[in-house]
Amino acid sequence: MRTIATKEIRLIPLGGMGEIGKNLMLLESGPDLVAIDCGLAFPKDNMPGIDVVIPDVSYLLERKDRLRGIVLTHGHEDHVGALPWVLRDLTVPVYGTRLTLGLASRKMNENFEGELDFRVVAPRDLIQLGSVTVQPFRVTHSVSDSVGLLIHTPAGEIVHTGDFKLDQTPVDGETTDYGLLAAAGERGVLALLSDSTHADRPGFTPSERTVGENLSHVFQKTNGRIIITSFASSVPRIQQVIDVAHRFGRKVCIVGRSMETVVDVSLNMGYLKAPMGTVIDVEDMSRYPLSKIVVLSTGSQGEPLSVLARMSQGEHRQVQIVEGDLVIMAATPVPGNETMVSKVVDNLFRQGATVIYGPESGVHVSGHASQEELKIMLNLTRPRFFIPVHGDYRHMVIHAGLAEATGVPASNILIGENGSVFRISPYNASIVGTVPTQDVLIDDLGPKAIDDWVLKERQFMGECGVVAVTVGISEKTGDLVGEPVIQTAGFMQGPRAAETAEALDGKIRGYFAQKSRDKKDTLERIEQDLIGLTRRYLRSETGQRPIVLCSVRKV
Amino acid sequence: MRTIATKEIRLIPLGGMGEIGKNLMLLESGPDLVAIDCGLAFPKDNMPGIDVVIPDVSYLLERKDRLRGIVLTHGHEDHVGALPWVLRDLTVPVYGTRLTLGLASRKMNENFEGELDFRVVAPRDLIQLGSVTVQPFRVTHSVSDSVGLLIHTPAGEIVHTGDFKLDQTPVDGETTDYGLLAAAGERGVLALLSDSTHADRPGFTPSERTVGENLSHVFQKTNGRIIITSFASSVPRIQQVIDVAHRFGRKVCIVGRSMETVVDVSLNMGYLKAPMGTVIDVEDMSRYPLSKIVVLSTGSQGEPLSVLARMSQGEHRQVQIVEGDLVIMAATPVPGNETMVSKVVDNLFRQGATVIYGPESGVHVSGHASQEELKIMLNLTRPRFFIPVHGDYRHMVIHAGLAEATGVPASNILIGENGSVFRISPYNASIVGTVPTQDVLIDDLGPKAIDDWVLKERQFMGECGVVAVTVGISEKTGDLVGEPVIQTAGFMQGPRAAETAEALDGKIRGYFAQKSRDKKDTLERIEQDLIGLTRRYLRSETGQRPIVLCSVRKV
Repeated sequence: MRTIATKEIRLIPLGGMGEIGKNLMLLESGPDLVAIDCGLAFPKDNMPGIDVVIPDVSYLLERKDRLRGIVLTHGHEDHVGALPWVLRDLTVPVYGTRLTLGLASRKMNENFEGELDFRVVAPRDLIQLGSVTVQPFRVTHSVSDSVGLLIHTPAGEIVHTGDFKLDQTPVDGETTDYGLLAAAGERGVLALLSDSTHADRPGFTPSERTVGENLSHVFQKTNGRIIITSFASSVPRIQQVIDVAHRFGRKVCIVGRSMETVVDVSLNMGYLKAPMGTVIDVEDMSRYPLSKIVVLSTGSQGEPLSVLARMSQGEHRQVQIVEGDLVIMAATPVPGNETMVSKVVDNLFRQGATVIYGPESGVHVSGHASQEELKIMLNLTRPRFFIPVHGDYRHMVIHAGLAEATGVPASNILIGENGSVFRISPYNASIVGTVPTQDVLIDDLGPKAIDDWVLKERQFMGECGVVAVTVGISEKTGDLVGEPVIQTAGFMQGPRAAETAEALDGKIRGYFAQKSRDKKDTLERIEQDLIGLTRRYLRSETGQRPIVLCSVRKV
Repeated sequence: MRTIATKEIRLIPLGGMGEIGKNLMLLESGPDLVAIDCGLAFPKDNMPGIDVVIPDVSYLLERKDRLRGIVLTHGHEDHVGALPWVLRDLTVPVYGTRLTLGLASRKMNENFEGELDFRVVAPRDLIQLGSVTVQPFRVTHSVSDSVGLLIHTPAGEIVHTGDFKLDQTPVDGETTDYGLLAAAGERGVLALLSDSTHADRPGFTPSERTVGENLSHVFQKTNGRIIITSFASSVPRIQQVIDVAHRFGRKVCIVGRSMETVVDVSLNMGYLKAPMGTVIDVEDMSRYPLSKIVVLSTGSQGEPLSVLARMSQGEHRQVQIVEGDLVIMAATPVPGNETMVSKVVDNLFRQGATVIYGPESGVHVSGHASQEELKIMLNLTRPRFFIPVHGDYRHMVIHAGLAEATGVPASNILIGENGSVFRISPYNASIVGTVPTQDVLIDDLGPKAIDDWVLKERQFMGECGVVAVTVGISEKTGDLVGEPVIQTAGFMQGPRAAETAEALDGKIRGYFAQKSRDKKDTLERIEQDLIGLTRRYLRSETGQRPIVLCSVRKV
């Protein structure tokens, strides 16, 4: 190793750069490696049958003896959700605040059997990880106990914001740690890595507290039962629902497993506070009139199996929608979920409920900073180098523009992608290479059982179906024996299908009739011929391109 | 027929009620049938491989000798797009304004070979259709030459708004026909059928003209090439692009087939006006500096094969994105297209372009009325009965609330679904039954080749793939002959797949070993056994449920 390396660090995002989700940033300082977050992403449209996506950590695993720790910024799935898989292959301390580790443990229990080394830290604690010292600092976000990280490295101080907004009136009273950030800015921040999720939104993100105020207005004029759905992890929002319910003399009934667990964990750890008797069991709901009930449930994303979706179909065992119910969608659809959510809302109206939804309703605010807050973060820290993180490519480009507007020279702003290797020294920063990263797709089969080709086949079959051709041939003559068997799934049906199968049958017979009796033809060769013939025939006759399987047997 | 029928009409929505798309409303008056619009819808997520969806017109076809005409309100696909299929099975006059029929003809030429009876009407013309007289009246919408319909029936006057907004400063100067509507309101409107698409948006929809003003601001501060993408059918928006380009001394270059045709049709018919030499051929683009060019293209919905998507990948033959290009997304994503659009925007940024997009950009406004405009329509017409149309269920419920707020009694408001039969007489309105309606799915195979079961199979395969098992058995003994052949597509791969196939092979051999040598077992019976065995094995071992095909041959 060259001497200069002691004054130089590398940052390698294995996830969360040029995408929203599966955040994992590696920091290399001399022999020491530190990982920031370890999150998952939800599958995209072109990943049918996949449950979750995790970062490719092969680069990390090859160097796992040098990994000093994983530091978590907050308890959302896209920051902690990949731990159950990544910790199968390495043993390392995991640092986080109390609630963050509480939420992460919950997931570990479901998916992991092994030994954990979870270490609780408080904001402003110093975590010594080899040549690097990490200091978490309080930030406001949509889950309690969120932190950013001030990282003292041999090259200088790095600020990683985690996910944040600048809520001036947070529900738990804990504002972002302006003091620590400003002091670091005074000393001189080498590089700022800042959340770009909402870099394309002008202005300021409203305070979480505005949701509570708007809920109050709604409660005031509602006589029927109120059903509120939100993300299970939105602890401050759940707190506000409990507070408002209590103020209006209503009981809160939690329905849905993930919401129940989060409320349980948060109440036990003191992150949620509920006056005695406010939260009741779903079994006791019938003891109160509808006007005294608030149901708090999951399903804000229209997930087909969620509590809310089942209610909207009249299929939930414990909660049947009745005329006069008011449903509040206290979360906006994550991109890609819009049509599912819209279907659930329609069905709730069909069941007789009134539904409050949409951006104008004021019952949801984002947990991410808008443009003016991002500029404040830039001005507080006044970094030499700026690296936008946590965002699609467009968000990072727009965030770079904001940095330039606050005075960071364009040449000191680096935009990378997953796998980019950023080298940062006290006077220089550049992208010096890339390491391999690809989506690791997880389903019931576990990691790596599904690759791009399998997904492509699924897509083709999902579009046009599959046609399987089985024929027997004479071992002696190579002639066709018996009838070709043509089976289909997800292909056409009815008279047209029968016609097509018959015509294809003719084509296959024709192939064997014309074919020179060359016994050197292998079965594979004949299968390839038949696949080609079937594909060409179906494409020209029907315009469709189903997947074709063929099996030729000697009889 | 009872005497009372002469004072009674029926309205039967075959599409567009409880959904956005494939609008088709039937009006029955005595022996006369009139169809309003004949639109298509785009396939939903659960319809893989389907190109378009059209209404089920079987009810109409059974009564086609009574159909007096189809009256079109405007030229959008969801109002005229099903004509090529519906007109295959019946011959009837089609009425519409000049541009509406121009746009509809364009589609007919592509998909239809038959005789057309298209009849151009002007706003306020009277169309006599048996016992019914239809009078189109001007409305403002996002395509020029849009109309609503005042329908004189034996029961009374019906107002059908079509799609509309109340633009007070429309680009072509043609406002909604307030005079006709108010006069009808004075005389007494029996029923109002009004566009609910944006009934959940408070306030007023901004004028189309604001887009032109915002485009001006953008042009003023842009030196590089400008690329604008919008819906091909947004004629007033295209007009504004041409106007602003001309004002700033830029040439407009149309790229993309559908945009070219619409511009062609509209220029020829006089609905678009371009100063000589402003619109240039794409081949001539290189003769001008980038700062003198506006490219107007399709692709605002992120469609993978569109001009814009290809540009964003650096794969368009005629337009390569260069640093300094400004791309303006002058249309919002239709629900369901958000992720495709976001990918295209990201890739444009990756190519070095700046992109203006999103609700705050002011370069797109809707063509549908918001809540205050809907209330004005209600107050102008003061209908006895109100039927919200053109919207998802939630939009219609919210629209009903607006009607109540303007004084229509709740008992006089009817919310239906596709297929509902509304009976309306001078003093009574109710839903008296339903006629069958279902989505008719169209792909290359034509209508009705694909049914729900085929779609279900496609979905399963798209999620979990397919496994095909082929075995040969002895004709004499029923024993297994040779090796079972196991083929898969879209299923797992790698070592895990080989292991699973081997274990399944063992299970199949086991089946034949244990099975009593009962030669009465038919091939079908053995196939069913093997399918069951394979399904159960794969589900318990892998948690997956692929489609299983099985073929057993006697050898």
